[in-house]
Amino acid sequence: MKRVIVTGASGFIGRHALPALRERGFEVHALDLPGANRESGDDLFWHAVDLLDPAAVDCTLREISATHLLHFAWYVQHGKFWTAAENLDWVAASLHLIRAFHREGGRRAVVAGSCAEYDWTTATGPCIEEVTPLRPHTLYGTAKDSLRSLLAAYSAAQSIEWAWGRIFLLYGPGEYPARLVPSLIQSLARGERACCRSANLIRDLMHVEDCGRAFAHLVDSSIKGPVNVASGIPVSLAVVSREIATQCRAEDRLDLEDQPCSAEVPAYLVANTRRLQSEVGFVPQFSLRDGIRDILQRRDMESNTK
Amino acid sequence: MKRVIVTGASGFIGRHALPALRERGFEVHALDLPGANRESGDDLFWHAVDLLDPAAVDCTLREISATHLLHFAWYVQHGKFWTAAENLDWVAASLHLIRAFHREGGRRAVVAGSCAEYDWTTATGPCIEEVTPLRPHTLYGTAKDSLRSLLAAYSAAQSIEWAWGRIFLLYGPGEYPARLVPSLIQSLARGERACCRSANLIRDLMHVEDCGRAFAHLVDSSIKGPVNVASGIPVSLAVVSREIATQCRAEDRLDLEDQPCSAEVPAYLVANTRRLQSEVGFVPQFSLRDGIRDILQRRDMESNTK
Repeated sequence: MKRVIVTGASGFIGRHALPALRERGFEVHALDLPGANRESGDDLFWHAVDLLDPAAVDCTLREISATHLLHFAWYVQHGKFWTAAENLDWVAASLHLIRAFHREGGRRAVVAGSCAEYDWTTATGPCIEEVTPLRPHTLYGTAKDSLRSLLAAYSAAQSIEWAWGRIFLLYGPGEYPARLVPSLIQSLARGERACCRSANLIRDLMHVEDCGRAFAHLVDSSIKGPVNVASGIPVSLAVVSREIATQCRAEDRLDLEDQPCSAEVPAYLVANTRRLQSEVGFVPQFSLRDGIRDILQRRDMESNTK
Repeated sequence: MKRVIVTGASGFIGRHALPALRERGFEVHALDLPGANRESGDDLFWHAVDLLDPAAVDCTLREISATHLLHFAWYVQHGKFWTAAENLDWVAASLHLIRAFHREGGRRAVVAGSCAEYDWTTATGPCIEEVTPLRPHTLYGTAKDSLRSLLAAYSAAQSIEWAWGRIFLLYGPGEYPARLVPSLIQSLARGERACCRSANLIRDLMHVEDCGRAFAHLVDSSIKGPVNVASGIPVSLAVVSREIATQCRAEDRLDLEDQPCSAEVPAYLVANTRRLQSEVGFVPQFSLRDGIRDILQRRDMESNTK
């Protein structure tokens, strides 16, 4: 019997991990904030718990007694999360969660990490898990990096199996409106002009559904340690913006600029995905073109049903 | 008005920081576990608080409203602390403490770190704060290393001044009896034979009173970041053992061996103390000879008053 706890289960990524885990035969216990009152089904059970409340976590984890843990929940307020003191709360809460999981017999913990753990200001090629130096430049990146170090050392001392999915740039339904992809779509679909200010930055974009599925694969594997969860494909923000403009039939309303960024903003941030593809055996379903089309189609469906 | 909170204030090191802080004009607020009931004086106030209880910490720190923090408290059970899960509790408790201190107007936090943060298995010369790679080989070392990274990133985001004293090997009154110096003294003073099993290891020994004073200096300085708190003098355990045997007049009862250690035990572990001596301006008072004499004299006084 495979029984997995998913934190942040109603979040941007978490919601897409749930069906993928059920398909792989997991009984899924989805954790959400108190007050959400979601409906449980045959192999999907919702639990309302504040992860910042240690006693509530202990109680819920004892009740579930899971074999696997998939931990997405974190402080993710757009524009604030890079430097917010709440990152420290989430280090502490995550440590508490993982220990409670282990105490109740948990065997394998998979946690959402970040490309912000890498020394991204000096990278000129794809980031490789055990090769690229780790040197976070933000409090958020430091918090993730510290949690991973602690989990690795804890697992060596206390024998719990762990993996760590380093997420790069995501896009897809439910993305915060001020971010690049939704804001371009919003402007161009309205008939307004839109501008991509840092068109020359090279990034690695993954559709959030692929990300959720990749984590379900990772949970259901025996791969240990850090694994980049990304497309592995370098793409400039100019190409991303043009693809959106083309699909919105608004090429003439797109402005591309190359404004200088601060030294802390990486020019090139792309994952090497050998571990994810060869070891975990995961292949993304969405190309960038298909991913943008998917967002636009959902947008049309939503506006048609209003 | 300089008002300092000292955690672990009745501990092995903490007790020696208190008089040194008072001499430097601090009003000292010493934190101790509930139940100790120590007597407060003119410029020394004892507070009983469990640092693993966040609400109690908030309440105590609000009441004190300190300008400075000196944080020694940690899980230090001999033989267990290297791998104990309690290290994770102390990361979380320390983060909570530092934020509560900052919230109540605290300006400068100084925390006890460890030589275990360094990649000590590859060191062939003295460890230098910003040069020697950090790569802890234990859960304890990882916990200290993570706390320091988080404190550095938090201070960059939230502007709080911080310093970090990396402690090497200490000896002195109150040391755990099973450790090298007290166990040799105990055996040799009883007229038994004694053995130093890893006589060729090179270490950096500091008398615990010097350590307490060094931290008081560090608190009262404006030096930022990591500072090795150590003697800076390489000494083999053979030399340490012979000094004890000589002072106990028991050279003929000392055996020196060179048993192989595990790969995780560093052959050479010594601090570069340029920052402590030149920047902080601290010079140790005890030579190894004086330090051993001090322990033996206290031992004599104690047995005379029994």
